[in-house]
Amino acid sequence: MSNSLSLEEQIQLRLNQLTKPLGSLGELETLAARYCIARGVAMPSLPRKTIYVFCADHGIVEEGVSLYPQEVTRQMVFNFQRGGAAINVLCRAFGIEAVVVDAGVAGDPIGGIVNLRVGAGTRNFARERAMTREQAMQAIDAGKKLAREASTHCDLAGIGEMGIGNTSSAAAIFSALTRTSASETTGRGTGLDAAGVAHKAEVIRAALQKHLPDAADPVDVLSAVGGFEIAMMAGFLLGAYEVRLPVVVDGYITAAAALIAHRLYPESLSTAFFSHRSAEAGHRSLLAELGATPPLDLGMRLGEGTGAALAMNLIDTALKLYLEMATFGEAAVSEAVPS
Amino acid sequence: MSNSLSLEEQIQLRLNQLTKPLGSLGELETLAARYCIARGVAMPSLPRKTIYVFCADHGIVEEGVSLYPQEVTRQMVFNFQRGGAAINVLCRAFGIEAVVVDAGVAGDPIGGIVNLRVGAGTRNFARERAMTREQAMQAIDAGKKLAREASTHCDLAGIGEMGIGNTSSAAAIFSALTRTSASETTGRGTGLDAAGVAHKAEVIRAALQKHLPDAADPVDVLSAVGGFEIAMMAGFLLGAYEVRLPVVVDGYITAAAALIAHRLYPESLSTAFFSHRSAEAGHRSLLAELGATPPLDLGMRLGEGTGAALAMNLIDTALKLYLEMATFGEAAVSEAVPS
Repeated sequence: MSNSLSLEEQIQLRLNQLTKPLGSLGELETLAARYCIARGVAMPSLPRKTIYVFCADHGIVEEGVSLYPQEVTRQMVFNFQRGGAAINVLCRAFGIEAVVVDAGVAGDPIGGIVNLRVGAGTRNFARERAMTREQAMQAIDAGKKLAREASTHCDLAGIGEMGIGNTSSAAAIFSALTRTSASETTGRGTGLDAAGVAHKAEVIRAALQKHLPDAADPVDVLSAVGGFEIAMMAGFLLGAYEVRLPVVVDGYITAAAALIAHRLYPESLSTAFFSHRSAEAGHRSLLAELGATPPLDLGMRLGEGTGAALAMNLIDTALKLYLEMATFGEAAVSEAVPS
Repeated sequence: MSNSLSLEEQIQLRLNQLTKPLGSLGELETLAARYCIARGVAMPSLPRKTIYVFCADHGIVEEGVSLYPQEVTRQMVFNFQRGGAAINVLCRAFGIEAVVVDAGVAGDPIGGIVNLRVGAGTRNFARERAMTREQAMQAIDAGKKLAREASTHCDLAGIGEMGIGNTSSAAAIFSALTRTSASETTGRGTGLDAAGVAHKAEVIRAALQKHLPDAADPVDVLSAVGGFEIAMMAGFLLGAYEVRLPVVVDGYITAAAALIAHRLYPESLSTAFFSHRSAEAGHRSLLAELGATPPLDLGMRLGEGTGAALAMNLIDTALKLYLEMATFGEAAVSEAVPS
């Protein structure tokens, strides 16, 4: 490829030379091009892929905002360690390394996973601020550092989470940063019924009225209603941008972390990929707020990085097509006749 | 699992016992359940997967309805044989066997692929009927027989096509069977501009007015405006239904074959999966006509079975989750507390 072409032009030239009608691979062409641009190379290797599952607990569960008891966060960490969770199955299927991060699970530290604990769960933000400003900064910094470390052994990272109660935190962050009413940002989480959703929205509305977080200060919003895993994922996005590591963002809670990162440094999302539209109410409007148009829409609402894993496989597939398909010249196939 | 439960109940029970909120894998749960029901077993093995790419030529290209010359059909068959086409890359990535079928490519027979040739391309349906009724029946029967043979060595089949000019045939079939105007069923194909699309729609409109195919007789419609590969794919769907072989349907042209199969025997689509919404105009309304809600929408418009391959990988992934995830009991994870 000629060196006189810009990187974008080199990539488009390659896409147009492949044996298919121009643009006919749709989103797969967009994904391949965006990956190459993020990495700064026209002909990359297939990416080494790692998903980070950030786990933490939330004091807000005392208010009855989740169908599941808090102990499930810890139980699911053990499930991740034994390889029995959905994210484990997907990572095995797609050749993705899974790394479990303890950002602040309630109870004692858990052996055998990455320990970046900021505390043993947040405080109940219906009563007091979820964390101190120092804890929010500590979580962000830990996420940044982890992204830098990730860039030494992987080319494409995914981020997801596990934390009973964390859709409440995500909805509160979205409401606080965009002044959207809690009734629009609150969803069923793990499966609340209509009365449960109404109660959860009221808990969030009342908490925001109590703390009055500063919409212009994402760290203040995190301190008031955030979760340790959400703060750490925001930091991960910020750190990954600095080292040109493309990051695939999972579902609603991870998108709330992306909103934090965006408000702290808008350019940080230029190397991020959004993965899917989940079934969680609020996710679509949060994606719209971020100008994100994810490729998948499968009605999922599981978290753990499961949507990110599917999108990473799609990016991998897009790159295989981009790198491995024959060109018109190589295959001696006639090109289109201009109409 | 108790034998007193129906197959559907056994599958739902398994899905509900997996360590995730109820229903939180969305479409992936639907895909896994539909596959199990199609195969008639609650705990299937992972499927052996084969994609059949049906190739044929179309006399209608004489009317200037495609950007590419007719010889590209044959050139792409050679590209399939050398492994350089998009469908080859996807089949390698997903562990799918690719089988190329000559349903009627112009010129001499091509060695090394499955020879089910009905003729050396159809006639130009702008001037005369595309094929005889006997040829249409021959193609359908060949497809049925191929599906029966496929069921001896694979558990999940995909069908796609290659044939310069075949979006014209697909649009004409859709129009003829549903009395929809050609302007609504005609799209850009490999990349026509607006004037090209208008010309193509006019060619189709005039041909339908000339032949007046019987909307109640799918074989008459095939004879008038069909393609050999479309007739053969319709037959494949009919044959696959008889032997309980689930078939994944690719894009617009393959959906036109599914419409033929549906009109010949509506139940035949009960074991079919639709893969994606393509960017080809008319595909969305054809899917709506068939009541199909495919899981993917990636703006693709390539054919060859590429959309089917992506959906087969998604079904495979859904089955891995269904079969390999730990249950709440196995993982000692607490279940939801009824609200």
